[in-house]
Amino acid sequence: MNTQASICIALFSGLFFISDINAQISPEQAEASIEKQFATDSLQIAELFRLALTESHPYEWLGDMCKNIGPRLSGSPQAAEAVDYSFNLMNDLGLKTWKQPVMVPVWKRGERELAYYTSDDGSKGELNILALGGSISTGDEGVFAPIVEVTTWDDLEKLGEDGVKGKIVFFNEKMNPENLYTFHSYGHCVMHRWGGAVEAAKYGAVGVIVRSLNMRIDDYPHTGSMKYEEGIGQIPAAAVSTADAELLSDLLKNGKDVSVMMRMLCETLDDQESYNVIGEIKGTQNPENVILVGGHLDSWDVGDGAHDDGAGVMQSLGVIELLQKLNYKPKNTIRVVFFMNEENGLRGAKTYSAYAESSKEFHIAAIESDRGGFTPRGFHVDGNEAQLQKIASWEEILDKYGIHKVEKGGAGADIGPLKTDDNVLIGFVPDSQRYFDHHHSANDTFDTVNKRELELGTASIASLVYLIDKYGL
Amino acid sequence: MNTQASICIALFSGLFFISDINAQISPEQAEASIEKQFATDSLQIAELFRLALTESHPYEWLGDMCKNIGPRLSGSPQAAEAVDYSFNLMNDLGLKTWKQPVMVPVWKRGERELAYYTSDDGSKGELNILALGGSISTGDEGVFAPIVEVTTWDDLEKLGEDGVKGKIVFFNEKMNPENLYTFHSYGHCVMHRWGGAVEAAKYGAVGVIVRSLNMRIDDYPHTGSMKYEEGIGQIPAAAVSTADAELLSDLLKNGKDVSVMMRMLCETLDDQESYNVIGEIKGTQNPENVILVGGHLDSWDVGDGAHDDGAGVMQSLGVIELLQKLNYKPKNTIRVVFFMNEENGLRGAKTYSAYAESSKEFHIAAIESDRGGFTPRGFHVDGNEAQLQKIASWEEILDKYGIHKVEKGGAGADIGPLKTDDNVLIGFVPDSQRYFDHHHSANDTFDTVNKRELELGTASIASLVYLIDKYGL
Repeated sequence: MNTQASICIALFSGLFFISDINAQISPEQAEASIEKQFATDSLQIAELFRLALTESHPYEWLGDMCKNIGPRLSGSPQAAEAVDYSFNLMNDLGLKTWKQPVMVPVWKRGERELAYYTSDDGSKGELNILALGGSISTGDEGVFAPIVEVTTWDDLEKLGEDGVKGKIVFFNEKMNPENLYTFHSYGHCVMHRWGGAVEAAKYGAVGVIVRSLNMRIDDYPHTGSMKYEEGIGQIPAAAVSTADAELLSDLLKNGKDVSVMMRMLCETLDDQESYNVIGEIKGTQNPENVILVGGHLDSWDVGDGAHDDGAGVMQSLGVIELLQKLNYKPKNTIRVVFFMNEENGLRGAKTYSAYAESSKEFHIAAIESDRGGFTPRGFHVDGNEAQLQKIASWEEILDKYGIHKVEKGGAGADIGPLKTDDNVLIGFVPDSQRYFDHHHSANDTFDTVNKRELELGTASIASLVYLIDKYGL
Repeated sequence: MNTQASICIALFSGLFFISDINAQISPEQAEASIEKQFATDSLQIAELFRLALTESHPYEWLGDMCKNIGPRLSGSPQAAEAVDYSFNLMNDLGLKTWKQPVMVPVWKRGERELAYYTSDDGSKGELNILALGGSISTGDEGVFAPIVEVTTWDDLEKLGEDGVKGKIVFFNEKMNPENLYTFHSYGHCVMHRWGGAVEAAKYGAVGVIVRSLNMRIDDYPHTGSMKYEEGIGQIPAAAVSTADAELLSDLLKNGKDVSVMMRMLCETLDDQESYNVIGEIKGTQNPENVILVGGHLDSWDVGDGAHDDGAGVMQSLGVIELLQKLNYKPKNTIRVVFFMNEENGLRGAKTYSAYAESSKEFHIAAIESDRGGFTPRGFHVDGNEAQLQKIASWEEILDKYGIHKVEKGGAGADIGPLKTDDNVLIGFVPDSQRYFDHHHSANDTFDTVNKRELELGTASIASLVYLIDKYGL
């Protein structure tokens, strides 16, 4: 966006925050004060970006955690290690740091899954599957049954008990490539992964395989959470790679009868104590007002949880590191929260929001980074129109750093329960094209994170925290 | 950018093209006609993006070329194969296709380079180097000499003959991480790679090693072009990986004497005939007016030239594929040019521009894609202010696809010679953060290209071609 256009927005579209404070000034006065104010803020924000690209540590922290600890499923020894690692990082930055106890579910994948298909044309082959998180075991002997393909709930209903009983239901809805923002495609498909086992069991299915939520055709299965429901029989559920989903679908389209054997030895153990890890800088003027920045520390148990959401937690802590390096003394308390158990329970989010409700603090804003460590594009804002427009008005300064999509939208799973009538939840939105190549798969690894993209994300969030702290919302 | 802001830009900043045609209409009328016009164009452009993400073939073409042919250094058998492959692709799309003869230099790397360092503290180790393109051989016995580090021409001058004679000069300027647009950092450093051997030879150096133009610290050396000058002795020149550059620099900083042995068996052969590969759709109204879209078909001889510039040529051809699928009949001739020999001679660019000058055609615009197959950000425009503003006004439609940086800037090496007083050169600008991880190294491979990012780039360029064809410049 060029300067002429930007000033035009500020003056004519009524978005600009200074006009809230002093509506009586002339347009010329407004323009002069806008320019002066922006000059200061622009310099500070330029310095945040410079510091992020030259002196910040989130990339190093992320590498340490991913390479030395690895994936961090709730209740695993690695999750416990990650809690200690994070606590020490925050302490080393001089933050007031604490661990907030959270009881988390404990699910174990067990031995590597095995699966193969056989077709009545004589073909046979291995399938790349991953048990969905929370699935029951198939038992040592596995489940072997004919498969039946559906793409919608309607398909399943039409098949009914006659078509489904004794079979494995194969949910094969593709992520829609037409959406520019890939999370929209994810949002459309994820219900089959989440609810497929319940719906299929109603018709007597003996198992479920779900096409991986991946826009590429490759061999990585992508796991994720699923549910069972009281009173409905539990059946095992797995994700199958997109390449194998295509293969199975092609066989079925050619009129073949296809059966699948799946063997998964997962188990659910008793809940265990884990922690949200929290650190903060106290506000100099309004310490009871909190600007929260966070992501989730837990990950799935494959890959090393680099993009989901190692990137988000390390960026969140990086925000505080940058504000410290800027020598900025926030008026409000800036708190970083590494939530536990986003992936399969949201227990950390629930625990934190219960704490927030019972405390005397006011969360002005909560910002979550949980969409990968990719190049910045914007923010999704869950607030009222005035709050949205105030943040959008800051595009004038942030646009040059690639932040030009400030839109109404969902903010994040961990911060969702913190919404009140007055506050604002914000999701950091990096470019979404590559996210689902990695998400919940063995391909979510540190080597796929670009250092500069991660750093630009940290600086983008830090800039927003700076502006919110300075001007409120 | 939100709608309110966009209309504001259109109405108040004088950027919008309809106002050029009909300056007397009222603001309300202008707004109405803007909205109507944009409604049609928006639909067409939305369809271009939909087609790119669902039915386009550049990713497949690029994969075929990178995996089956590989890197395509000018004059190599692979470059010849790539010429045939490209010619057939264009033919298969039904284009009027031809091969334009170009005499290209032929340089061969020969056997894999060997290099090691020794230090007077007794340490010793291999170094990852790649001969710079055009370098002479060291001969079979190699060159072994003490190294001396410089970061600027001034450093070299200060050392003078006393400090340099008989030594290998180690140019160790780091790419500046502070620039958001990484090509600016490249532009600042590349002179040492290009001219280092000449300047060092003036003081009696026996060889040159140059820090790779890579913002990461890793083990990939990045090659690239270099020059020799008439009357100045030729010395061998190589790029060294950033990790090894750091190692050497640390040893020197600790006061050690360090010597390097480098052995490279490169050779320059006689020029050879190769080709620019050209295809076009004739304009229905002004066939003598050409909108050119292109990239370069040759690459360096390491990796498989996926981002530099397989992505660019396949996107260029993809533009025509998309316009065909849209069933759009261009008023002007749309021509795709796969230039030969951008990397080490620009002979294809020179040949084509000589052709353009002697023909009766007018090149309205030439667009180059040569900055990698990454997610779109904008365009750099080399034209007058009115032309820049006209293209910038189209951000109203293109912004939602991530195109929001339309700025004055250099367009591309291949199209540069086509500039006249009247026409416009345009460089497609994808996100630049990852480009120099890959550029000119063994790490520039097809698996590092994301299908959707490539496709969004193709659609962005196709949209621009559509708008230029429809509204002129």
